Amino acid sequence: MTVDQKVRELQHFINGSLVDGTSGRYSDVYNPSTGEVIARVPLASREEVITAIENAKAAFPAWKKVSAGKRAEVVQRFRQLVSENIEELIEVICEESGKTKEDAKGEITRGLESVDLAINVAHMTKGEYSVNVGGGINAYSAKYPLGVVAAISPFNFPVMVPLAQTSMAVAVGNAVILKPSEKVPISALYMSNLWKEAGLPDGIWTVINGDKEAVDELLENNTIEAISFVGSTPVAEHIYQKGTSYNKRVAALGGGKNFMVVMPDADLEKTANAFLGAAYGAASQRCMAISGAIPVGKETADKFVAILKEKIANLKVGPYTDETVDFGPVITQQSKDAVLAAINKGIEEGAQIVVDGRNPKISETSKGFYLGPTLLDEVTPSMEIYEKEVFGPARIIVRVESLQEAIDLINDHELGNGVTIFTNSGAAARKFQEEIEVGMVGVNVPIPIPVGYHNFGGLKRSKFGEGYMFGPDQARFFTKVKTISERWLEEDDETASTFSFPSNESGK
Amino acid sequence: MTVDQKVRELQHFINGSLVDGTSGRYSDVYNPSTGEVIARVPLASREEVITAIENAKAAFPAWKKVSAGKRAEVVQRFRQLVSENIEELIEVICEESGKTKEDAKGEITRGLESVDLAINVAHMTKGEYSVNVGGGINAYSAKYPLGVVAAISPFNFPVMVPLAQTSMAVAVGNAVILKPSEKVPISALYMSNLWKEAGLPDGIWTVINGDKEAVDELLENNTIEAISFVGSTPVAEHIYQKGTSYNKRVAALGGGKNFMVVMPDADLEKTANAFLGAAYGAASQRCMAISGAIPVGKETADKFVAILKEKIANLKVGPYTDETVDFGPVITQQSKDAVLAAINKGIEEGAQIVVDGRNPKISETSKGFYLGPTLLDEVTPSMEIYEKEVFGPARIIVRVESLQEAIDLINDHELGNGVTIFTNSGAAARKFQEEIEVGMVGVNVPIPIPVGYHNFGGLKRSKFGEGYMFGPDQARFFTKVKTISERWLEEDDETASTFSFPSNESGK
Amino acid sequence: MTVDQKVRELQHFINGSLVDGTSGRYSDVYNPSTGEVIARVPLASREEVITAIENAKAAFPAWKKVSAGKRAEVVQRFRQLVSENIEELIEVICEESGKTKEDAKGEITRGLESVDLAINVAHMTKGEYSVNVGGGINAYSAKYPLGVVAAISPFNFPVMVPLAQTSMAVAVGNAVILKPSEKVPISALYMSNLWKEAGLPDGIWTVINGDKEAVDELLENNTIEAISFVGSTPVAEHIYQKGTSYNKRVAALGGGKNFMVVMPDADLEKTANAFLGAAYGAASQRCMAISGAIPVGKETADKFVAILKEKIANLKVGPYTDETVDFGPVITQQSKDAVLAAINKGIEEGAQIVVDGRNPKISETSKGFYLGPTLLDEVTPSMEIYEKEVFGPARIIVRVESLQEAIDLINDHELGNGVTIFTNSGAAARKFQEEIEVGMVGVNVPIPIPVGYHNFGGLKRSKFGEGYMFGPDQARFFTKVKTISERWLEEDDETASTFSFPSNESGK
Amino acid sequence: MTVDQKVRELQHFINGSLVDGTSGRYSDVYNPSTGEVIARVPLASREEVITAIENAKAAFPAWKKVSAGKRAEVVQRFRQLVSENIEELIEVICEESGKTKEDAKGEITRGLESVDLAINVAHMTKGEYSVNVGGGINAYSAKYPLGVVAAISPFNFPVMVPLAQTSMAVAVGNAVILKPSEKVPISALYMSNLWKEAGLPDGIWTVINGDKEAVDELLENNTIEAISFVGSTPVAEHIYQKGTSYNKRVAALGGGKNFMVVMPDADLEKTANAFLGAAYGAASQRCMAISGAIPVGKETADKFVAILKEKIANLKVGPYTDETVDFGPVITQQSKDAVLAAINKGIEEGAQIVVDGRNPKISETSKGFYLGPTLLDEVTPSMEIYEKEVFGPARIIVRVESLQEAIDLINDHELGNGVTIFTNSGAAARKFQEEIEVGMVGVNVPIPIPVGYHNFGGLKRSKFGEGYMFGPDQARFFTKVKTISERWLEEDDETASTFSFPSNESGK
Repeated sequence: MTVDQKVRELQHFINGSLVDGTSGRYSDVYNPSTGEVIARVPLASREEVITAIENAKAAFPAWKKVSAGKRAEVVQRFRQLVSENIEELIEVICEESGKTKEDAKGEITRGLESVDLAINVAHMTKGEYSVNVGGGINAYSAKYPLGVVAAISPFNFPVMVPLAQTSMAVAVGNAVILKPSEKVPISALYMSNLWKEAGLPDGIWTVINGDKEAVDELLENNTIEAISFVGSTPVAEHIYQKGTSYNKRVAALGGGKNFMVVMPDADLEKTANAFLGAAYGAASQRCMAISGAIPVGKETADKFVAILKEKIANLKVGPYTDETVDFGPVITQQSKDAVLAAINKGIEEGAQIVVDGRNPKISETSKGFYLGPTLLDEVTPSMEIYEKEVFGPARIIVRVESLQEAIDLINDHELGNGVTIFTNSGAAARKFQEEIEVGMVGVNVPIPIPVGYHNFGGLKRSKFGEGYMFGPDQARFFTKVKTISERWLEEDDETASTFSFPSNESGK
Repeated sequence: MTVDQKVRELQHFINGSLVDGTSGRYSDVYNPSTGEVIARVPLASREEVITAIENAKAAFPAWKKVSAGKRAEVVQRFRQLVSENIEELIEVICEESGKTKEDAKGEITRGLESVDLAINVAHMTKGEYSVNVGGGINAYSAKYPLGVVAAISPFNFPVMVPLAQTSMAVAVGNAVILKPSEKVPISALYMSNLWKEAGLPDGIWTVINGDKEAVDELLENNTIEAISFVGSTPVAEHIYQKGTSYNKRVAALGGGKNFMVVMPDADLEKTANAFLGAAYGAASQRCMAISGAIPVGKETADKFVAILKEKIANLKVGPYTDETVDFGPVITQQSKDAVLAAINKGIEEGAQIVVDGRNPKISETSKGFYLGPTLLDEVTPSMEIYEKEVFGPARIIVRVESLQEAIDLINDHELGNGVTIFTNSGAAARKFQEEIEVGMVGVNVPIPIPVGYHNFGGLKRSKFGEGYMFGPDQARFFTKVKTISERWLEEDDETASTFSFPSNESGK
Repeated sequence: MTVDQKVRELQHFINGSLVDGTSGRYSDVYNPSTGEVIARVPLASREEVITAIENAKAAFPAWKKVSAGKRAEVVQRFRQLVSENIEELIEVICEESGKTKEDAKGEITRGLESVDLAINVAHMTKGEYSVNVGGGINAYSAKYPLGVVAAISPFNFPVMVPLAQTSMAVAVGNAVILKPSEKVPISALYMSNLWKEAGLPDGIWTVINGDKEAVDELLENNTIEAISFVGSTPVAEHIYQKGTSYNKRVAALGGGKNFMVVMPDADLEKTANAFLGAAYGAASQRCMAISGAIPVGKETADKFVAILKEKIANLKVGPYTDETVDFGPVITQQSKDAVLAAINKGIEEGAQIVVDGRNPKISETSKGFYLGPTLLDEVTPSMEIYEKEVFGPARIIVRVESLQEAIDLINDHELGNGVTIFTNSGAAARKFQEEIEVGMVGVNVPIPIPVGYHNFGGLKRSKFGEGYMFGPDQARFFTKVKTISERWLEEDDETASTFSFPSNESGK
Repeated sequence: MTVDQKVRELQHFINGSLVDGTSGRYSDVYNPSTGEVIARVPLASREEVITAIENAKAAFPAWKKVSAGKRAEVVQRFRQLVSENIEELIEVICEESGKTKEDAKGEITRGLESVDLAINVAHMTKGEYSVNVGGGINAYSAKYPLGVVAAISPFNFPVMVPLAQTSMAVAVGNAVILKPSEKVPISALYMSNLWKEAGLPDGIWTVINGDKEAVDELLENNTIEAISFVGSTPVAEHIYQKGTSYNKRVAALGGGKNFMVVMPDADLEKTANAFLGAAYGAASQRCMAISGAIPVGKETADKFVAILKEKIANLKVGPYTDETVDFGPVITQQSKDAVLAAINKGIEEGAQIVVDGRNPKISETSKGFYLGPTLLDEVTPSMEIYEKEVFGPARIIVRVESLQEAIDLINDHELGNGVTIFTNSGAAARKFQEEIEVGMVGVNVPIPIPVGYHNFGGLKRSKFGEGYMFGPDQARFFTKVKTISERWLEEDDETASTFSFPSNESGK
């Protein structure tokens, strides 16, 4: 066999250098658009993870002492390098994830919003200062980095999510260990070189490739102070519970079942357009993808489904190398099989198939993991395809009679990541945003992902832990606080013993 | 025997009313100053806790809908009622906890700082608003209460800690279930009546008395969204791990081993005065009590110990009814025994006893749980009395040769709650606050507890979870966020499908 | 004549005491509901103002040194005293201003929102703290009171506006001199006693009664650091220009011409109800009163005017002693004459009188300054009654054909205090709030005055200066900042001379 | 004569293009290091300024509508361009200002801190959002740019101060008109090209060169909404008073008389080193330069002066082309004459000259405006050289007996820009920072200029107006606020008329 000659062997990025894996275990990395293996990624052993952690630990104290302004300069240079190399990075993303170039560019742009926020680390990490709180005491709080922290990233955003998880973490002075998805490790390694070139000290940014073994070490190792996770809900729950059982700080974001409520007064043509991109873009592999529509009233539903049916027929699926395609393949054959199973189960449970994308025509020879856009109508809450997050282009229609019914339905679902409503009515929008138990709410916005300077996070089982992702909260999540009460004794100060509990005139 | 006739039977406070316990299990409540049982408190069964939770859950939606301003008015009235009844409340605290009246007054005053902060709930819970983030979208965040939350409180501050844990929780719109220490349940019940009188709706403030069984239900019950705990480190750790294993938000504050570093340039007379109150006040039963002194240099140590020895001789221990006493008894006979054991073990391990308070002379007949002030010199890090938090008036001297040695010693201890340094040197103070791994730092301040409008929390094993106690963080801990992206379509807006990931010009 | 025997002679409140005026000049204080003189108020001479300022200046240093927590306690007690005496205070307001009891209660409630915000002064005046900004330097900001500051208040809110102007000013540590309107001085004097009783030190709260002479001294006196003014636009402009010409900090709020835009999709019945109270309440003597409606489209206008005509007929005008009246008299005979002149001029310029309130029937004998509700239709921008603020119950209808026309019209007006739109359309509301050049915007809210924890202020010629009223901005307006860069030299620090400009690694 | 052939004629930068001046009036621009005229700058007529303003006004609406994120991208690119062209920009600064290359680099670095802050404009301009403030109303604030604003800059920082004044102003969406000092216009024009290249729309960044005539138009023109000024105190006062007399928002920063207090416990060698750079760097032409030292106690003074005398002897003055010089010339011959006059007057009034720099030896032929470092001892508060800011290398020693005397002296001076204390005592530093009436305070920091993410501003006559320079305050100064109260009526809402003043349950 000649596989070894074609397939690139990837590495880890530890202590400022690319290093070979030593565990002997590997995972294949596919180009989902062709179905071919393009690389194999080493899966780190516990020992390799420990080595990475120890290097990070050793690098931390010096980086912590660098002033916030100087750290920001490094982040600024990294940002510039990403901009300068954006075309190459887009290619890397597309090849390993299968998403379109436009989509890859979009995720980089959004990722850079997190970097921009991190440039302002000095402002974002100010403590509070109170003069003379009583007894000649000044009280103030100072923020410090935690130490070594870890980020565990999903496959669907090889660049954006890691940047959201790590930019501020690095900027506030931590040493960060990123474990990217073993399906898309190349983007993370690519960024490693940019960090190095930007002047980040060795050991502050680490990429450790791996699977459950690596994750377990990150969760159990006492040197790791905090875990930032983005992925599916079952894994997020596991990460939260296991990480906290080791007393760590954990923010774990899970999946979504994000509905678009379509009110009778909505412009259905525009709403359908909004649905298409939000629902099928990136082959529906976004935690904020619209999972389905909930039209209110039979008339709305009938019209909306008819319009969708027509529009979906015009969508084009294919490889990112064809710039006219609307979306590409799903990430793996297993993923494709799972989506097919979900569709079949849905039909079995009584859903009506409006558009069937189970056998898309791509080309005679393509072995890529393609699925065409699929739409199931008459889906009900008891069906599995309603309950579960489906990470592929099978979307559903759930019919209700009133806005209240739509709200109740959504609130009963265990997930609460994103949701949107299309309407012209201020009253409907207000009622919706007030009553809906979902973390990110859109009003006439297809994908209600907040801009990068607002916090990102769902409710219910879509997020575990107090922290948020993106946004200013990152500066909080990755720092700890010392609160200082400071007094200076002048010669004439008297200091009698005070046995009672100090009030705000304490100490004097 | 006629014990039953003297002993009051306490109740729970559920759904706005005092209700009898039904489990048949009780715990004795002592007056530590006399050693007598003054009441017995019912220990709730799981069923009783569930009932309390269900009542709270039913009350929540209406309270959530009350505007922040109207909720603040209730808090304002509660504050006024505490002020008006402060003498009676002091008496309640003193009787069940044994602390002096001045000390009880101090804790109420500090507790009211939390209430004052809660009065400003409307300001503290503002979200962020961004106009036109791109594509005609406005993005903003809105904060909402979590639902039913629980607070589990320690015995040493029967009023202050519950107020810190619950005032803001109530003010932001939650229904709160307080499980006070079964050793000091009367203060919590007393406050229940004041909340009711202030106009708080039934079910929003609940006191459930109990032990591990009640705590287990609070930790495991899915309706409880968040747990605020203050207590010892082992229990705090357990609460954090168990609470998070049920996916709850948890802030768990543990114990402290809080040292006072005494620099050679400090005024030793003043420093000794500061030490006495901070170390022995409230019979040392404060998580922020000074556990021991670390004088720097032999000369400093010798002089400091000599001064302390002389001053300690003048301290007076006794019941709170004698207003000349400096501190009272410890909370229980078991607690007294534990402190005695710790002292004995220390001596056994080589510590030198400077002042021996093991047999204090109170009166011929007193059966109160008294211990005199005790000081052990030549304590080293390997001794148990150095490692463990001691909740009674046995304090230690650890001798070091340099500030650096003191810092290293403190940083090596597993606890990191409070610490203080006495010096006139700006450089020493700066080095100390920069390098010390402790959450609350004093400079010439005996007890470095921050004022109530700053956050309270330790580092290392003194605090588990991201959240803090007291301070503005309470408004964050007890709320969740929805982030809304809002756009209104005008007739001439075009909405083509966008399949790529939305940048900050999304939606248009 | 026996006037002297009936008429109470008022005083100033200087240095903690009520003191007689010495200038020999007085102004009559009327009960507008009866037209009778109820008191005469001394008009301070320059010398009296200087005395008041000197007393305030002397009192300031001690108050400044009191911790924020202790100052907040005084504010808390003052708040309590206002609550306890609210019925009496309502009576005082009603008697001197003529407003209804319900209205007086409303203004006290809103005023207390400012007091509540001031209770949190410690939180509101925190500076920022940055650790290690480079070269071992910590940088932080500390906020301090300004010194002696002045508030000049209008007649229309004898309690609310002074509380908004002074509560935070006092709480942050300033000495405040209030010059109330000479038409309603009694409320201010009443509050003086409550401040005193609350424990505010003498000299920190001063009431100086007077006219232009007193104002001139406040504007010119170098000890006065800041001026907070609320009144009419011409005077606000004068105050801003003169105060700043003496280098003072000035926030001067002027008048409003606040329109209600009525969209064709609005529920006209509800909108008319909203209009009535917002337009005629307090005899229209509010800077946030609705001055007129701008219905969009002829059909809307015709219907809306018809509904209003019918509803206005049911309004009842009379003295506050009659609890069934909707509003009372205007403040003075001169004010009544001015409103009558405005109406007459409007008719002369072509406006159509729909409801004529020029000769209200109150009682045979009443000499109160009453005017009935008046409505003029077909008002155009060129008429004087459109251009000028009218402080009395004469309201106007301006007809337009489109929302854009309404917006353009409002934006062309020199005033920009408040505005509101009634509609069900999210798109209309969004366009309105985005394009309208007005500081306080309502959407289906009759009087768009923000809640007390948001800032209050108009645009264009409705506000002069950077500052706002009410809200958190008060804490900024009344404080100044010191920014400290602190470094401590350790023995091994080298300090070579640096001649180039320090970057953020300065000093090392 | 052939001057015209050597001298470059400069231009204005209006509407995105360099345009010739048309007034016929010019001012010479010197190279202070050689004394030669290197260019002549056109002095704009009122008409030219009006044209510039009109172009800015026309460009504003489109720039305002660009989202904050997109505006930040332009600022980001501008920042990158400054970095890429830093060597050339340094040369420009040095040639027209005479400062050393290292110094020029320092000012660019500090200027970029303001640019970095502006990159985060989206975060810095968030308003506040309150959900359900009563009656179903949501209340929130939205920030908008002001329109056309002006910055008037001094000669001493040709790049840093303009960047501090304009970066955030541009980023938040204003159109900015910069009038640089006519002595250093080339740096501003250089930056104009970078803004253009960065993609800033024409008309948003304007450079208008000129003198009093241009300034008068900026102050009087109604289109200009705000004025940011940095310069000397008399001009700052004039700008504040005149700008506000036209109802503008004005922040006007003036001069400083910044003292270094030297405590007896300070390390005099290190302190002297700190003094040299802070006092003589940039030929003392910084508003934050140390004007003089105030040693405490005769012994301290004698020693400190002796050390200084020796060290000053080693300082080297000369042109920036010689990289070994410590500082260069003053800006003009007039400036040199004024400094000489100040020294002579000081000697005449009794000061003792310790080091005489009146006739520095530079080279036989140099016509540059050089002055050597000069030190006067025994200066007293009554001397003119104590009272006035001296913008050249003549520094003074004022002897006092105690820290209190030093504080009192400094507090009596009319200026309050910067001050610093050198000591090892925490108590002395605390007393100093608490009692000193100066806006920027150093503790063992030679030049207490805050880092760029803190606000910059003096007290007393060193700053006029509420606003600050640099720092987060810029985002406030250059924006205005609309506060929106939003309610949506559902069909079952009742809306009765409310005539009383709305409390926080208004509208329902």
